[in-house]
Amino acid sequence: MESHAGLAATPRALPYYVAFSQLLGLIAVATTGAWLGLYRGGIAWQGVLQFNVHPLCMVIGLIFLQGDALLVYRVFRNETKRTTKVLHGLLHVFAFIIALVGLVAVFDYHRKKGYADLYSLHSWCGILAFVLYFVQWLVGFGFFLFPGASFSLRSRYRPQHIFFGATIFLLAVGTALLGLKEALLFKLGAKYSTFEPEGVLANMLGLLLAGFGMTVLYILTRADWKRPPQAEEQALSMDFKTLTEGDSPSSQ
Amino acid sequence: MESHAGLAATPRALPYYVAFSQLLGLIAVATTGAWLGLYRGGIAWQGVLQFNVHPLCMVIGLIFLQGDALLVYRVFRNETKRTTKVLHGLLHVFAFIIALVGLVAVFDYHRKKGYADLYSLHSWCGILAFVLYFVQWLVGFGFFLFPGASFSLRSRYRPQHIFFGATIFLLAVGTALLGLKEALLFKLGAKYSTFEPEGVLANMLGLLLAGFGMTVLYILTRADWKRPPQAEEQALSMDFKTLTEGDSPSSQ
Repeated sequence: MESHAGLAATPRALPYYVAFSQLLGLIAVATTGAWLGLYRGGIAWQGVLQFNVHPLCMVIGLIFLQGDALLVYRVFRNETKRTTKVLHGLLHVFAFIIALVGLVAVFDYHRKKGYADLYSLHSWCGILAFVLYFVQWLVGFGFFLFPGASFSLRSRYRPQHIFFGATIFLLAVGTALLGLKEALLFKLGAKYSTFEPEGVLANMLGLLLAGFGMTVLYILTRADWKRPPQAEEQALSMDFKTLTEGDSPSSQ
Repeated sequence: MESHAGLAATPRALPYYVAFSQLLGLIAVATTGAWLGLYRGGIAWQGVLQFNVHPLCMVIGLIFLQGDALLVYRVFRNETKRTTKVLHGLLHVFAFIIALVGLVAVFDYHRKKGYADLYSLHSWCGILAFVLYFVQWLVGFGFFLFPGASFSLRSRYRPQHIFFGATIFLLAVGTALLGLKEALLFKLGAKYSTFEPEGVLANMLGLLLAGFGMTVLYILTRADWKRPPQAEEQALSMDFKTLTEGDSPSSQ
């Protein structure tokens, strides 16, 4: 079914940007681990260390994996659309499950300690991001993987899906920065202003997360790096367009 | 010079989204004022109230005005390109000056109080946003308003300018949320978790700022809401393209 004539060349600079994004993302995950290990006593499901499951899972799930799921269509340019879609959906499932573990960890920790839930800006943004992420996944599944939606419905929803995907990702990055700041101020208080090593490391982690977010967004939004439609998709689209609509929606 | 045949219709939903963004932006500015007035003793250049100049100026300058400057090309669709450019540049100048006042206020306040500067993630992100904003303005001026740059140079730089403009704006919004959180935790501490009215108001301000950022970004990125090139620009572009390049860069 696949013809080699349909293979599109990968833009020259794209692999370097993708590699850079992965480097930033992995360093961010490692720095989160280092921060929790060096200054917060490490990770466990029991006792006070249960809290530390929360930042680690959120950085791995809602930031690193979610970011990579957004890049799937830029990285896999010549696989069939269906394969790429399934990979995109699966990465989001993994991201969601890991984030769910992170969320359960913090609620469970709060419950055991008798702390209040959902009072801070971090928690409000976080719950919003998580709920929107879940809704976006369900709606995306319904439109793009479930076989019901028509071509015209899909092409009308696609730009919304991309916009909200990028927005939820950015909200997740912003929420992580708020959480980091909260963790620093609760523990360090006024010592934060004396350039404590933990504060400097956590600030650098914040910049790494923001840098990862920016790089993913750059790769995602560069118009000439979009995945080109493949020969068979184009032919199919044309058939559908001719069948279902008078005028064609311009390809964006 | 302008012909009415060149007038493009404004997309039907655009004015509603622009109105909604302005509503969110103005409510965010008003809420900042209300927060500072009700819970922080108001604003002055002398004494402890000097600090309060900082959040107010940053929200007005680096968020509201910067956001509106990004929307200029979507709102003014039939004015000449030059008029729109000058308005875009001027709004950014106002935003920059107001933000500079806000920056001077906090450094001056820290100096008088003997507080350390630039130790927090908020300050690191803020200085980064401010410096990038200044550089972006200078480079943008050099490419688009100064008459030297060629058509081909401009069209190669334009997507970068738009991406970095949106990124700096988002960084400013994120930085504001970090600052808000810092101000809350320093003052309220553990009381933050008892749903103090100030905490709830400030959380709502955070969501308003994030909502304004998202709405501006949505208007900015909707492909079918981009400003259409005008008749005389198109003619000029075609001349330039034919003169300067073999193949034409696709209009993105």
